[in-house]
Parts: sequence; C-alpha cells; structure tokens
Amino acid sequence: MKAILIIADGLGGRPTDYNGKTCLEAAKTPYLDDLAARGAVGLMDPIGPGICPGSDTAHLSILGQNPHKVYTGRGAFEALGIGMEMAPGDIGFRANFATVEPTPEGLRVLDRRAGRISTGQKELEAAINSIKLNDVPDVDFEFRVSTQHRGALVLRGNGLCRYVSGTDPKQEGKIIGTSHPTVVGNIDAQRTAVALNELTKKSYEVLCDHPINHRRTDAGKSPANILLSRGAADLPVFQSLTSIYGVQGAVLALGALYRGIGRALGMKMITLIDDTNSLDEDLAAIAKMAVAALREFDYLFIHIKGPDNAAHDKDAIAKIAMIERIDSELIAYLTSQVDWKTTHLAFTGDHTTPIEYGDHTAEPVPIIFVGPNVLSDKVKEFHERAAAEGGLGRFSGQALPILFNYNNWAPKFGT
Amino acid sequence: MKAILIIADGLGGRPTDYNGKTCLEAAKTPYLDDLAARGAVGLMDPIGPGICPGSDTAHLSILGQNPHKVYTGRGAFEALGIGMEMAPGDIGFRANFATVEPTPEGLRVLDRRAGRISTGQKELEAAINSIKLNDVPDVDFEFRVSTQHRGALVLRGNGLCRYVSGTDPKQEGKIIGTSHPTVVGNIDAQRTAVALNELTKKSYEVLCDHPINHRRTDAGKSPANILLSRGAADLPVFQSLTSIYGVQGAVLALGALYRGIGRALGMKMITLIDDTNSLDEDLAAIAKMAVAALREFDYLFIHIKGPDNAAHDKDAIAKIAMIERIDSELIAYLTSQVDWKTTHLAFTGDHTTPIEYGDHTAEPVPIIFVGPNVLSDKVKEFHERAAAEGGLGRFSGQALPILFNYNNWAPKFGT
Repeated sequence: MKAILIIADGLGGRPTDYNGKTCLEAAKTPYLDDLAARGAVGLMDPIGPGICPGSDTAHLSILGQNPHKVYTGRGAFEALGIGMEMAPGDIGFRANFATVEPTPEGLRVLDRRAGRISTGQKELEAAINSIKLNDVPDVDFEFRVSTQHRGALVLRGNGLCRYVSGTDPKQEGKIIGTSHPTVVGNIDAQRTAVALNELTKKSYEVLCDHPINHRRTDAGKSPANILLSRGAADLPVFQSLTSIYGVQGAVLALGALYRGIGRALGMKMITLIDDTNSLDEDLAAIAKMAVAALREFDYLFIHIKGPDNAAHDKDAIAKIAMIERIDSELIAYLTSQVDWKTTHLAFTGDHTTPIEYGDHTAEPVPIIFVGPNVLSDKVKEFHERAAAEGGLGRFSGQALPILFNYNNWAPKFGT
Repeated sequence: MKAILIIADGLGGRPTDYNGKTCLEAAKTPYLDDLAARGAVGLMDPIGPGICPGSDTAHLSILGQNPHKVYTGRGAFEALGIGMEMAPGDIGFRANFATVEPTPEGLRVLDRRAGRISTGQKELEAAINSIKLNDVPDVDFEFRVSTQHRGALVLRGNGLCRYVSGTDPKQEGKIIGTSHPTVVGNIDAQRTAVALNELTKKSYEVLCDHPINHRRTDAGKSPANILLSRGAADLPVFQSLTSIYGVQGAVLALGALYRGIGRALGMKMITLIDDTNSLDEDLAAIAKMAVAALREFDYLFIHIKGPDNAAHDKDAIAKIAMIERIDSELIAYLTSQVDWKTTHLAFTGDHTTPIEYGDHTAEPVPIIFVGPNVLSDKVKEFHERAAAEGGLGRFSGQALPILFNYNNWAPKFGT
C-alpha cells in the first residue's frame, strides 16, 4: 500500500474572498471534485476549534503530533529543512540577511530582504562563519543560507536555551532588537542572548566591509550588511513515524519549514530543482517527482505553498489560479498515474488564509480522503461548504494517522 | 430513569467488506433502523481520530475514561472479570494453558489452547496454586481458570511492577519467552519477572506429571502442560460510576475483559449461563436477562462479542448474520419490553474490524441514542454512511456519560 498526503498551504477561505465565495469555491477544480465524488470529505480544524494555526503548529498537528505538547518554535525545523544538523541542546533560528543603517538610536532596518539578494550569499555565509565569539565561553555556531536572503543559524554548546527573543524587528524602519531572555532568572537564556547579540554585532562588522557588499552598493543595490535572527527553538524529541508505523516516507516541499518538520518526524527530504517557494512552483515537475518517489517510498507528504502566498498578498485571482493549477497540473497527473487499488490519498490545507485579512485564521479546512478502504459519501464537490456535508464530519488535525489507518498501518493502542 | 448501553464488538466495517458495503450496511436491521428513526445517530471515534483502538482502551474511552491517562494493560481487568480480587500493587496477567515440547532451544509451543481443553481445568488450577515460589521473597500468586484454556494470574506482594514482558510467544511453533523488565533499572520489575519465570518453569513441572495430562495424552489429546502469561497490569484507581453519578449499574457480558472493566468502574457483574464468548452467544437469553436486570439496576452495559469474532475470522456472512441476530433477538425484544418513557438506550461498536484486514482499525463507528430526551434527526437507518448524516455529528468516546446525561444523571462541572 502507498499513501499520499497533500497540503495546499492557506487553502481555506471566507465568503469575503471573491463575490461571496471562497477562493476554493470560485476555482474550477474538476479533478479534486472527482476525488471528492469517489472518496469522503469533511472539515478538519488544523489544531482545534477556534485555534488560529501557525504554519509550523498546523503541520505538526496534521502530521499526528500534539503541538501544545511538542512545539518549541520554528528555528529548529528551518535549520533541519536546509540540511543542517540539530543535536539535543542546540538552538536553531531563522536567520536572514538584511540592510541596516546606523542611527543615533541603533541600527535601523532599511530592507529586511537585503534587496532580495540572489548572488554571492555563499561568500557572505563564509564571512559570517569566520566570526569568533568571545563574550560567552564554549558557544559555537553555524550559519547556512538557503534561498535569496534566507537561511538558518544554529548555536551549539552547553547551557543554551530557546527562551530568548530574536533580533529581527520584523518591520522595515524599525531599530533591530537586542536579544534578551523571555523568562526571568534563567542563566542559560542569558548566555544564549549574549551570544546571539555578539554574533549579530559582529555580522554587521564583517558584512559592512565585505567586497560583495561594496560591489552591491556601487551597483545601487541594498547591501546585505547584517544577519537578523528569530524563532529560537531547540528540537523536540519525536518518535519517528517509521518506528511507529513501520513505513518509510519522504517530504516533497520547497519550504525549509515543511522539509524540516518532515525530517524531524523521520521522512527523507527529496531534492527539488527549484528554490523559489512561491507561486512559480513547477507543479507538473512536482507531480512527476511524486510519482517517481512513490516507487521508492511507502508514503509522500507533498506541500504546496502557493495558495498561502497569494492570500497573504490579498490577491484572490492569484489564489484561485494557484488552486486551479494544483488541480489541473498536480491532481490530474496523480489521478491518472496512481494505482488506486493500492493507494490512499488525502488532500487538505494547513489553515485558512482569507483574502480580505491576508493572514491565518482559525476556521476548519476541507479535507478529502480517497482510496479503496474509504467509505464514500454523497458529496461530489470539494470546497468548504460541500465539505461540511461530508461523511467525515468534523475533527481536529491527525490527517496523517487517519490516512495511514486506511492502509492498515496504525498500531493498536492496547490489546 | 433507566439507561442501557449496548456495545457490539467490532461492529464497524469498510466498503471492502461485502459487495461495496460494510457488513452493517449489508445486514437487514429493521429494529436498529427503527431506533435510528426515533432517535439520533452520529459517528464516534472510539478513542480519537486516527487512533486504532484495542478492545480494552476502546471500552475505557466509551465508558467515560481517558485511556491515555488510565490504561495500564489488560491483565488486571481479565482477573477482575473472572471474580478475582486485585489490591493496589497486585499485578494481573492473562494466563492460559498451552501445550509445549522440550527442544534444545527451549520449550516450544505446539498448541496455544492446549487442545481447547474443556474438562479437568479445576484440578490443573489446583496443581498450579500448590506451587511454592522461592526465588523472590514475599511474592504470592493466585491462578484461576475461566473458560477452556483461559484464565488469569495475579502476583501479590510488595515491590511488584507491571513493566515486564509476558511468557506467551503468541504464536505456535515459537519458543516460550522469558519474562524480563521492559524498563531499565527498575528493581521491582526485575523481581516481578523473576517470580513469573519461576512460576512458569514450575507450572511445566507440575503439569507434565499431572494425571489429567497423562490421560489426555493417552487419549490422543494435547496435554495442558504449561501456564503462559501476558498483559501484565496493575489496576488503575477509578472513581466508581456510582459515586460520580449516584446510580448503580451492572455489566452483562461474556468476555472477562468487559466484565472486569465494568467491575473496575463499579458495576455489578451479572452471572451468565453460557461461557463460550463467541458467535454462539444466546442473544434471546441475554435479552431476557437484561430486561430482568433492568428492574434491579439503574443502568446496564451489555457487551456482545460475536461481530468482532466473525470479522477477525474474515467471515462477512457470519458477521452479517451476527448483526442480524443482534437486531432480531436482542434489539427486537428490548424494543418491545423497555418502558420508552423512562429509558435511554445507546447502541454502538467499540471499533471497526474490516473483513479484508481481519483486525481493528481506527475509523469512527456509528452510534444511536434513543429515548424521551434525545432530539431526533432525519436519519432512519443505522449504518456507517447513514450515521455520518446524523444529528450527533462526530465525537470521541464518552458514550456512557452522554447516555447518563439524557437521564439527568451528569453532575455539574462547576456551578
């Protein structure tokens, strides 16, 4: 048996999206409708009713974890997702190059994306990694770039702690933050904040003087003259899905977060050809890679970021178009290529991202399960309103365990 | 007011059961359909979405407990269910006579059921109970047979622990196991394993020499020449249902596990005439006993094992026939005999057991509630697909508290 879980990020919508319809209602999705007709649909609260999910917590819940118990932050998954190693006690951060200028109040952020830098980042990474930290003994670090201005930072050493604030003010025009403990009286948090502050200060020193930034400035581009960090997290200890279910899967995702969560749970990360993580995702290529990977792995977790990006941009037309591309390029190909006698597939979103609001909200998202062991229901369309009439009712997260159960992979709790 | 909870074990099914239908869909169940028409239906995840239930954990959840918190194992309930006493610190096991033969590797299991021994077990029980344990000071034990080769074992004494493996290899042709601690560095677990291993070894010695086994061998039957144990458990401390709800109930079940769980929660165990715990259950007799017991008790928990046995045997015809017998012999009689002005009834399964797979799976099971305080819905049939359209939606376990609430027995949480 094979299993496929597809998460379309930010899939859910509201009637304010587009002429009284959600984007998913407005989109033409004949292949998803066909899956709905053959399978069963329902509504899934990504974490629980009324809980507004982050991308990280939603995915943990959908993949079978309880984020209230295991979630420590995003940085560790970001680091794992770009291939870095995280040992117990290491603290991971999301980190990105930015452009800052000195002011009497401190360093002010001019561009959080350093002009969307696209060349020379590896040299800047090397410059960062040559920094020596002196303020805190025995703390080591590693920075790695991923795409454009993005990357991850890992602090290593004894006596580190995730309870520290980041340095990224998350808004242009603001002064960069000083990391400080977010709990009182924790010496490890103090050490961690001191180390991060020293690294941030020294990153400004080495990057300001870097030849790449001189060239960028000469060319009228924003220099990547500081490394900003956020999302401090150590890695939760998970029982791997392989040890629980006895099967080996893989994650097919562009975003580091989703790759990292999959890796933390024991999935292999499939290398992708593109790194844009945006509306430009080459869905036809992803569909072909999925079918090929399905020969090697027992299950696949496929993540598509596009609908969420369009919704954060408050662009209904783009979100509808992205959903229609998922239908016609990914779902259509899988429908024709998958052996439906031996495969169960689930399709859903990780949360709602309404167009008018442009950020995550807590409504349940529609979900399809299809395959030989699924009791079909009467619903023949796939969107929020149709899913409310489906045979699966309403439940919270756990889509991957539910999918695996259809493959008879679920271990018995008790006897 | 009176309340009746009926659990048909392994009731749920899949479209692969029988010509695209579940066994419950395929079965003719006019009396259950009538209850559905008068009451409300829904889908219940026995424990939670995607969690594959054991019989023990499912029943704990359906009867109002959280098995993630209270479940310790099966052995204690098995012991309670055949009338043995379990004090705090005692460790209960499922135990059964088996036939083994000596080999260079150890004792090899020839028949896990000792030829389904049906006479002489009480004498063998006495032989077991005459054994003196010497390897561990201050450990006492008691073994009791229940039906055929089955029974339960209780170890008693200070410093015992449930974290030990059993000796039953659970498969014929295999060498019997040596009990060992399943956690590291626990002295109590070591003591418990040593005591169980000594008892197992001595059971072989006394049973091999027993006249009953000489006669069995002479008659060409498999001797019951060892006692094998599994499912170590101490008894969780429950608040009795009587103290929570102020009512006294009884359990009407053939299986020791179900009787034991009921007893652990404060129910009285009703003596049954038959001990086969199989498809042969005399449902008409059980129906009459239920109606009689309802005069004495406030509520009844009735457990019918048959559908699960048929499904484990992958026999769709037998499962359908068993469901139809439940309908025509048990439900029909209760429908005609119960005072529906003062009675609420719930009917459901403890888990899904699909025919093709032959073991438990995690899908939600259909459930009916009927009685004067139940808001009826539009559904007029009782099966998985119809229940998905019912007025109760989808929820997890807790059928007994929901049933008691209709009788106005539920205590207020807060003021």
